[in-house]
Amino acid sequence: MSSAPFAAIILAAGKGTRMKSDLHKVLHPIAGRPMLAHLMDSVDRLGPAAKVVVTGAGREQVEELVTTYEGVTAYQAEQLGTAHAVLQARESLERFQGDIIILYGDVPLVGTETMARLIARLHAPDEPAVSVLGFRPADGLAYGRIIARDGAIEKMVEYKDASPDERCETLCNSGLMAVRASDLWTLLERVGNDNAAGEYYLPDIVMLAAADGRGSAVIEAEPWEVAGVNSRAELAEVEALWQQQRRARAMAEGATLIAPETVWFSHDTVIGRDVTIEPNVRFGPGVTIGDKVMIHAFSHIEGATVAAGADIGPYARLRPGAEVGEGARVGNFVEMKKAKLGRGAKANHLTYLGDAEVGPGANIGAGTITCNYDGFGKYPTRIGEGAFIGSNSALVAPVTIGAGAIVGAGSVVTRDVSADALAVARGMQEERPGWATRFREKMRARKKRDS
Amino acid sequence: MSSAPFAAIILAAGKGTRMKSDLHKVLHPIAGRPMLAHLMDSVDRLGPAAKVVVTGAGREQVEELVTTYEGVTAYQAEQLGTAHAVLQARESLERFQGDIIILYGDVPLVGTETMARLIARLHAPDEPAVSVLGFRPADGLAYGRIIARDGAIEKMVEYKDASPDERCETLCNSGLMAVRASDLWTLLERVGNDNAAGEYYLPDIVMLAAADGRGSAVIEAEPWEVAGVNSRAELAEVEALWQQQRRARAMAEGATLIAPETVWFSHDTVIGRDVTIEPNVRFGPGVTIGDKVMIHAFSHIEGATVAAGADIGPYARLRPGAEVGEGARVGNFVEMKKAKLGRGAKANHLTYLGDAEVGPGANIGAGTITCNYDGFGKYPTRIGEGAFIGSNSALVAPVTIGAGAIVGAGSVVTRDVSADALAVARGMQEERPGWATRFREKMRARKKRDS
Amino acid sequence: MSSAPFAAIILAAGKGTRMKSDLHKVLHPIAGRPMLAHLMDSVDRLGPAAKVVVTGAGREQVEELVTTYEGVTAYQAEQLGTAHAVLQARESLERFQGDIIILYGDVPLVGTETMARLIARLHAPDEPAVSVLGFRPADGLAYGRIIARDGAIEKMVEYKDASPDERCETLCNSGLMAVRASDLWTLLERVGNDNAAGEYYLPDIVMLAAADGRGSAVIEAEPWEVAGVNSRAELAEVEALWQQQRRARAMAEGATLIAPETVWFSHDTVIGRDVTIEPNVRFGPGVTIGDKVMIHAFSHIEGATVAAGADIGPYARLRPGAEVGEGARVGNFVEMKKAKLGRGAKANHLTYLGDAEVGPGANIGAGTITCNYDGFGKYPTRIGEGAFIGSNSALVAPVTIGAGAIVGAGSVVTRDVSADALAVARGMQEERPGWATRFREKMRARKKRDS
Repeated sequence: MSSAPFAAIILAAGKGTRMKSDLHKVLHPIAGRPMLAHLMDSVDRLGPAAKVVVTGAGREQVEELVTTYEGVTAYQAEQLGTAHAVLQARESLERFQGDIIILYGDVPLVGTETMARLIARLHAPDEPAVSVLGFRPADGLAYGRIIARDGAIEKMVEYKDASPDERCETLCNSGLMAVRASDLWTLLERVGNDNAAGEYYLPDIVMLAAADGRGSAVIEAEPWEVAGVNSRAELAEVEALWQQQRRARAMAEGATLIAPETVWFSHDTVIGRDVTIEPNVRFGPGVTIGDKVMIHAFSHIEGATVAAGADIGPYARLRPGAEVGEGARVGNFVEMKKAKLGRGAKANHLTYLGDAEVGPGANIGAGTITCNYDGFGKYPTRIGEGAFIGSNSALVAPVTIGAGAIVGAGSVVTRDVSADALAVARGMQEERPGWATRFREKMRARKKRDS
Repeated sequence: MSSAPFAAIILAAGKGTRMKSDLHKVLHPIAGRPMLAHLMDSVDRLGPAAKVVVTGAGREQVEELVTTYEGVTAYQAEQLGTAHAVLQARESLERFQGDIIILYGDVPLVGTETMARLIARLHAPDEPAVSVLGFRPADGLAYGRIIARDGAIEKMVEYKDASPDERCETLCNSGLMAVRASDLWTLLERVGNDNAAGEYYLPDIVMLAAADGRGSAVIEAEPWEVAGVNSRAELAEVEALWQQQRRARAMAEGATLIAPETVWFSHDTVIGRDVTIEPNVRFGPGVTIGDKVMIHAFSHIEGATVAAGADIGPYARLRPGAEVGEGARVGNFVEMKKAKLGRGAKANHLTYLGDAEVGPGANIGAGTITCNYDGFGKYPTRIGEGAFIGSNSALVAPVTIGAGAIVGAGSVVTRDVSADALAVARGMQEERPGWATRFREKMRARKKRDS
Repeated sequence: MSSAPFAAIILAAGKGTRMKSDLHKVLHPIAGRPMLAHLMDSVDRLGPAAKVVVTGAGREQVEELVTTYEGVTAYQAEQLGTAHAVLQARESLERFQGDIIILYGDVPLVGTETMARLIARLHAPDEPAVSVLGFRPADGLAYGRIIARDGAIEKMVEYKDASPDERCETLCNSGLMAVRASDLWTLLERVGNDNAAGEYYLPDIVMLAAADGRGSAVIEAEPWEVAGVNSRAELAEVEALWQQQRRARAMAEGATLIAPETVWFSHDTVIGRDVTIEPNVRFGPGVTIGDKVMIHAFSHIEGATVAAGADIGPYARLRPGAEVGEGARVGNFVEMKKAKLGRGAKANHLTYLGDAEVGPGANIGAGTITCNYDGFGKYPTRIGEGAFIGSNSALVAPVTIGAGAIVGAGSVVTRDVSADALAVARGMQEERPGWATRFREKMRARKKRDS
């Protein structure tokens, strides 16, 4: 979208004390992905020339993620304000000529399109020195105000310094902005710290540019896009905002969510058309759901692929590597892990399928367990097409059940079963007549004696 | 309630494109029942003389349901507006003399009482030509406005044509109305399509009647009652409105819902007094819950009858045909399907009871599975009064466990067990001393070798 | 906080008809604890000299709880108004000299600190006769208004008697107040019942004191603190208010709640730092969660202790007496009751551990059941350090599995297993080649014949 080269500076040096966490604030997840990764992904979609993350305390925690995204970190040893923080990125960008967008590691939902608009604004005919992202919060809280006319900024003022009239302005400053590299460093050098907190404030560059006779511009974002995270409560709010957008998109694309507020998506969930999702479904990362799939309540799905027309849950747990075939059925209290369930196959109740491959049309009886682990390694179970596994069976892996074979209920299968054979592995039934009567008499007598 | 004969015309010809669905819009369910069925049921409670559903694209999907309700369909080949749509019902109602109520297939929550009021309004002393259903939305959005004085309509105006003063009116047009058959067709014939969209608008009949010197009247409904569905998001909203009403009623009638917003009822759920429902419970169709029942969190109940004083869940799945007796207990990860649990009987953990009958006071141990299916048919399990099924047993149906009998833990029972007998069906326990030590040494050596 | 002696009178004589319940209104629980107990606990933290609960219908239900809290009950035979109700406590407090706080059994969330402030207000330099608890509701509904200047009450007026100007006042009367014993009884004697309902109203004492030339004062509480319960809907609202406060506290103290609105705490839940709680988790009473514990969705936890770094759920059911060791793992569809899981031990799937002790590092295979009950008593299972229980095993208690022992999958263990031994207890596997083919042919032929 943006054709000029651009770089992103992401401020992430805040201590995040209010999070009360050993984990760095920007690594706390939204939709199962660290906040910083959300930003990195959104930036990457625009093809940045460079990404610099300004870190402070806990920078060693942040570095791995930054490296994964082929970014670099800069270090702000002391927290002397946002202008000072941005300056720490100067060395990394010394030779960079182009636009710079300034983002915040704890404002994770800003979208790619908004970033593009913010940068593009620099190149409008009026060529503003700074392009600022504003928003209109519903609550009119203590945000800094932007006094602007037709998008041209006249003044930016902290809430505490604002006049009553200024406080009536509904346009607030998100803190995000775009500036040309050729302007940014020289403007930053001139920012002072002559204020109550003794800090160097980034928004001051707007007024410094104005003093040079250069205008600045504001564009607007939706409030949810610039919501920030300073506490776990705000983390939950931003998670809720993200989920709200995602649910709306799922419905717009043709899924029925009976109670959307109780469906939690992951950052990468893919949902087909005419899918129905009952209340209380949680998606972890890596899920793809085909068309016309029915997902019943209380299902927990991660790292799984579900083909068209399958029927999942309630209480289905699909773990990474679960693959459910077309029209297949995974019922209640069933767990799948690294397991394929073939087209039209069924595992309806109380089953664990781990490291298993179930052929098309096979039926897995209630209470079936694949015994895939011996304390050291994991072993595969293969169940052929159309096989029938009787209820409460244990299949001790590695083991293969041939196509069309039947395993008798309650069997412990330790050896392969041939195709179309019946395998039974259980004890003989013995009966002791009247034993229960005698047992009850004995127990009652004992109880009487003991009391 | 209405003593004059009346007929209902339900408009359902809209394409529902925004639903992005292969299913016809009016068949999308609210509370587990198609929207159109909600309307049909509400109309039927008033004893209509006829019901005509005007269909368009996808009419073949709609017809089955209409037939079930002994209604007829009319076909609108081209979508030329609501007045045109209503006219398609004329043939079906040619000989009908009485009142006609006009409803919308995608406005499913209008109640019987409101319908009755709307029709009855035609017969008030002022004898209006048209009786219109108005509402006052919370948001004042772009609905058509009704300018009325003491319930007599002076003007109806589309929002886009309304003056600023008219837009300040809070009374909006739901589109629903009642008209005498003797007026309806002649008024409709006079409706023109001289407007931007080139459509024939139903509300125009109000102004046409006024031109004849005849008044029209408005009565009011609650906004939730006339909420319409044009997208999956609106489907979810209408579902939420329905659930909200239903939860309020459950509480008013004496049930405790700890977190009402997480309990989902079906259209026909029946709940007793002093029932407690923990968070996250989902009712499917066909459920009756007796007095003083406790339903714990994460329960999923459909087609089931639960008698007084029973204790259900958490994580209980009652499927169609489940009958839980007085004071009985269904615990966690227990599934019942076509199964009776007698008075005071218990199935506390990890159990599947399918096609089963459990006598009073019986105890079903953890992990018990009724093996009711052999790939072809389903077979019954009968467990007598006071029987005790040891944990992790498989009962291979058809099979009967006599009253007072005991089944040893881990048994696979394939033959009937006599009353008061003990049945055991399991393998002998053998021990190989030191085997585990040798196994671990071997596995560790192998790992070392392989690494 | 309050140094003068004080007594509490709690009014609980209301019939609670709108609850439609056999249970006394003040015994309905909030966060798993009766409303009255919430108040008793909050009062007790201030060290009261006496607690008198005024009861009416159903007093026998209330008495046990009152006795537990070392309070006394007084009986109001007829419901003649709040002033009359308070007078019934006079006999119990005849010799008490000090402050009296008047509370309501159906206003359960008033906090200890607010009670202390209300009492302390009596002892401010202006020495008011009555100290009244006011609040500013968001909705401005039909509450009695308090006309006050700088906290000094000028007038208290029922909403229905209030002038339009008075109705514009946002400060409302909660009904809670504090009065010196030396004033209370004499003021109450003078309260008349010359009003529409013919009732004796407690707030009248404020105007009676004013007639004596003595002022009264108001202090403010948050609206949620004085929310009252007259119906199940209001019970749910107060539950929601309580949960909202508790969730906010959990987050402020350093827990991540991904969807806070779907986590339900009990009155006594203790949560460590850097705990993550996924959506849909329910805590019953008696739970302590250590630092860095992960609780996955759909978990139901009561009476349990979970040590640092443990991983719980999804679908974990911890019942009273469950103790999960450091770094241990309780997976899906696993139930623990009176059971210890040692440090680093794992019970990952479909398991019931009852009356069991599992040593550190042990692995409990999928589908393992401790058979702890024989219909009469409960028996213990002991599993040694590092033992490995093969999947789908039944351990018939009392039984001990030695440290490092291995139990073969599908075994029914009825005798102790030595340390480091292998125990296997299952049937032999037999195969009948081609049996399945013949079975299918037979069944299909039968089906054909029957159809």
